[in-house]
Amino acid sequence: MIQGIGASAGIAIGKAFVLPNWEWDVPEQKIDVTDLAKEFDRLYEGIKTSKDEIEQMKGELREVVGTAESHIFDAHLAILDDPIFMNEVQGIIQRQYKAAEVAVKEAIDHFVTMFDLLDDEYMKERALDIKDVGNRLLKHLLGAPEITLPTDTQPFILVAKELSPSQLAHLNPSHVLGIVTLAGSTTSHSAIMARALGIPLVVGVEGKLIEPIQTGDSLIIDGAKGEMLVRPSKLVTDRYKMRRSSQLEEKKKLHRFVGVKPVTPDGKTIELAANISSLKELEVALRAGAVEVGLFRTEFLYMDRHSFPSEQEQFEVYKAVAQKLDSHPVIIRTLDIGGDKQLDYFEIPEEDNPFLGYRAIRISLDRQDLFKTQLRAVLRASHYGHVKLMFPLISSVEEVQKAKKVLEEAKQELRQENLPFNENIEVGVMIEVPAAVLIADLLADEVDFFSIGTNDLVQFALAVDRMNEQIAHLYEPCHPAVLRLLKITVDAAKRKGIPVGVCGELAGDARALPIWLGLDVDELSMSSYTILQVKERLLRTNQEDSRRLLDDIMKCRTSQEIYDQLETFNANVDQLQQIPQAASPAQMD
Amino acid sequence: MIQGIGASAGIAIGKAFVLPNWEWDVPEQKIDVTDLAKEFDRLYEGIKTSKDEIEQMKGELREVVGTAESHIFDAHLAILDDPIFMNEVQGIIQRQYKAAEVAVKEAIDHFVTMFDLLDDEYMKERALDIKDVGNRLLKHLLGAPEITLPTDTQPFILVAKELSPSQLAHLNPSHVLGIVTLAGSTTSHSAIMARALGIPLVVGVEGKLIEPIQTGDSLIIDGAKGEMLVRPSKLVTDRYKMRRSSQLEEKKKLHRFVGVKPVTPDGKTIELAANISSLKELEVALRAGAVEVGLFRTEFLYMDRHSFPSEQEQFEVYKAVAQKLDSHPVIIRTLDIGGDKQLDYFEIPEEDNPFLGYRAIRISLDRQDLFKTQLRAVLRASHYGHVKLMFPLISSVEEVQKAKKVLEEAKQELRQENLPFNENIEVGVMIEVPAAVLIADLLADEVDFFSIGTNDLVQFALAVDRMNEQIAHLYEPCHPAVLRLLKITVDAAKRKGIPVGVCGELAGDARALPIWLGLDVDELSMSSYTILQVKERLLRTNQEDSRRLLDDIMKCRTSQEIYDQLETFNANVDQLQQIPQAASPAQMD
Repeated sequence: MIQGIGASAGIAIGKAFVLPNWEWDVPEQKIDVTDLAKEFDRLYEGIKTSKDEIEQMKGELREVVGTAESHIFDAHLAILDDPIFMNEVQGIIQRQYKAAEVAVKEAIDHFVTMFDLLDDEYMKERALDIKDVGNRLLKHLLGAPEITLPTDTQPFILVAKELSPSQLAHLNPSHVLGIVTLAGSTTSHSAIMARALGIPLVVGVEGKLIEPIQTGDSLIIDGAKGEMLVRPSKLVTDRYKMRRSSQLEEKKKLHRFVGVKPVTPDGKTIELAANISSLKELEVALRAGAVEVGLFRTEFLYMDRHSFPSEQEQFEVYKAVAQKLDSHPVIIRTLDIGGDKQLDYFEIPEEDNPFLGYRAIRISLDRQDLFKTQLRAVLRASHYGHVKLMFPLISSVEEVQKAKKVLEEAKQELRQENLPFNENIEVGVMIEVPAAVLIADLLADEVDFFSIGTNDLVQFALAVDRMNEQIAHLYEPCHPAVLRLLKITVDAAKRKGIPVGVCGELAGDARALPIWLGLDVDELSMSSYTILQVKERLLRTNQEDSRRLLDDIMKCRTSQEIYDQLETFNANVDQLQQIPQAASPAQMD
Repeated sequence: MIQGIGASAGIAIGKAFVLPNWEWDVPEQKIDVTDLAKEFDRLYEGIKTSKDEIEQMKGELREVVGTAESHIFDAHLAILDDPIFMNEVQGIIQRQYKAAEVAVKEAIDHFVTMFDLLDDEYMKERALDIKDVGNRLLKHLLGAPEITLPTDTQPFILVAKELSPSQLAHLNPSHVLGIVTLAGSTTSHSAIMARALGIPLVVGVEGKLIEPIQTGDSLIIDGAKGEMLVRPSKLVTDRYKMRRSSQLEEKKKLHRFVGVKPVTPDGKTIELAANISSLKELEVALRAGAVEVGLFRTEFLYMDRHSFPSEQEQFEVYKAVAQKLDSHPVIIRTLDIGGDKQLDYFEIPEEDNPFLGYRAIRISLDRQDLFKTQLRAVLRASHYGHVKLMFPLISSVEEVQKAKKVLEEAKQELRQENLPFNENIEVGVMIEVPAAVLIADLLADEVDFFSIGTNDLVQFALAVDRMNEQIAHLYEPCHPAVLRLLKITVDAAKRKGIPVGVCGELAGDARALPIWLGLDVDELSMSSYTILQVKERLLRTNQEDSRRLLDDIMKCRTSQEIYDQLETFNANVDQLQQIPQAASPAQMD
């Protein structure tokens, strides 16, 4: 039994397929002076094909895992336009009369060696990008086949040091039972994608344990527990097969709950809403049983473009989402870029700590031109459905007041232009900065609702960047301090009489549901694929029991104690409460 | 009147000296094949001289502003050893028969152009470093004089786009009345140094306002208010001269308070301790009237070396500090590297957000070998004075328990080796992570004292990196949320009966003293040069009045309201309470 980190739940049992490296022999080959022009044509043709291919992969990846992840290819496209790299290649062809593929190979080697010599992690990453793109270009120049995963074999468990963006995009879910990687974290691109596709994934397995695995070896992985077994006995395999069957069975059962109202046995309703980034994701969400949108991440409308989207472009998307939801609410969050989300056409100076930097509402208040354009679009869409407005990364009363002042200006403009909008549009703030929790009572006086962003809140409260593998184990959503921050926020909202939702990852973690029931939040907004899991638990977890549990865990001194109590509680719910029968008409939402 | 940011208090009146750029003409010059060896000798000689010079500047800077700042030169030294840069230079000499200075100039131009082309802030900084070092090497090869500040003129106000490390190190305080720069923040190297030297400094002045200033122009700067006046009238100049005189008068008066006990008129004592990084800084602190050390930053013992300091080396420094303080306490904080503090010989992988990364106690608990060595040294020193131990960046009860377990092991080892130490050494934690505040009651059960680190606490609570110029205005130590965090911490400490000190920058800001008095903290630890200013205010500020003020400002909704109330309060203290007379024997500490 090898222990890694569980990054996407599920059990996979099958043969290993070890992903080979991407390497070719490039024979030294001289060209004639008269062939120079032809050789340059070959080079440009190769570049063009490579670019098309990368654009296509970017498109495919976007379909599967969304816009944010597809951006990893932009760095690759940039290299094919990079004057330094391309000058080097052209120079070798022109001055040394070498074939284009030889020149590309030598240029790759030169830059990779140079960047590696610099002994700097940043440059090493650049070197990897150049290698990946250079190899793609080489492939076209050599006419070599793409190294793809086999499609003519049994489905397999993919074993790789790491999955490059290119490999990710070509991964065919129907052939991949599971994935094990040496590198990676639960928040890496491969992890997000694996969860979206429902493929079990174990990451962070030690090199000396993963390297001996050969293609064809029997493997079992448990993506929930982060476990891997190499060449397991029949007895063990049978045990895991049984567990897998029952897990698959569970999955099917969940689909019964699509139309069921989200109410606990003792009558507490929590709205289960979806986090979306596009109209397309809304469709997926609706199929998964969501009837509301608790978080519309508008920044994705700003990506994959060369300039800011116009008011009209934004309006049309917001309007379409509002109309599609009928009278059900959508919370539109204003632009939340910065941190790890960048736009190609809006340069943010290099920051030492981008998470603590120029981001979200800070940019909007600094660039009121952009902000007002977005607010006008949201306001105009508010005429066509139940649209709410939300500001991200609020840390002070002043910021809310400034944002509301711009909103007021936008309203005034629309009135003068006789454009219809909802005069009483509800305005809320994300509670994701510790300071916002501490002044939640003051903020509640300014707004109509709160939405707790647990991801950033936990990061700031614990001073832990969860993307940083070296300290990711310190990222503890169930830390006693985090529970206290959540309680302060919800108590302030209740006292001031405004609703409070949750839209961080913890909202979609079914194990944490008793916390939300105990705190008495009004809405949980999450990725579509977790809605039914959470609903299933909601349907059989009493709020009263959860309140008592919360009283107990608020007294815990460590995260471990909290997890233990939660686990015991959830296990009891499993034992005591039957899964409710399929929805009766009275329960239909 | 031009508005910048005040980075070092004080008024300067004088003529401008505009710092010229560092540029030379390098005539194209070929060499003979027979002179190749000689040319290489010249190159190596120039490199050696440049290195010596940089090492010397590093030493000088360390004397003035401490070890941390002197490290900016390490990047420069590394470039002179960089194989890629030096290969380029050697290649040009060897293959093109160009003189060494021509080769250096061409190599600089090549790398700077290349890095600039990459359009990446990180690489642009690299380019600046190469330019600075390359120019130093050029200077030696050309036999050109150092561009130094004039010493034969009247003292002047230095005007510069930015001050490079080299220029900083050569700055002669007796010739510089004040400094104005275009770039920079209140936390930049130049700002730290200017404050240490007592030179008024205004930073962040707009380019279009600073560029028209010529050497010889009359200038006035007010480093407290961040104001600059160009070619002021006689009337204005006279007014500023009067203000300057009274400020200088104040400064002299402060020295009367060196031996006076730090007690308010109504009898509250707050210990005013010093933050130090070395034995040498302790001497400065003692002269400035400190009798205790509230924060010994041990990481500086680990810098400027090629390997970790041994137990014996550390022991000797800790022992010397303990002995020098006689029976007065010193709080030794364990290694606090990571974030923006790096060691040459301990590589931390590149981090996206180092402030939220692998730092401080996280490294100590991960590398218990290093940690135990330090703990043994601290324990052994505890035999020779009043030594307390403190852990930085604590975010959970578990971390404290783990750290105490290693401490217990270290004690056990020393017992077995019959080495004397204080069995009852007091153990405390920094409260600088928001989570630590929220669980302050739980942490208080584990330790003997708290020390609040306001710098990091404010950064995490507000999600603002104060080094980031673009959002530095959001760094608000007097934010309502910060006050609430401070109150939670102090209240928990009081309830549990343990003392609580403060060692962030806000501890040394005399304007904030009423907050500390109102909260009833036990100790303020600060840079030596602010101790007397804080003491002067302490001697005439009543705790009872401060308590009432605190009640009022805890109700404020914005930082501005808090600043306004603090300012009014401080102005009232100025008016109502006379500066106390020189110490009477009864007040001597």
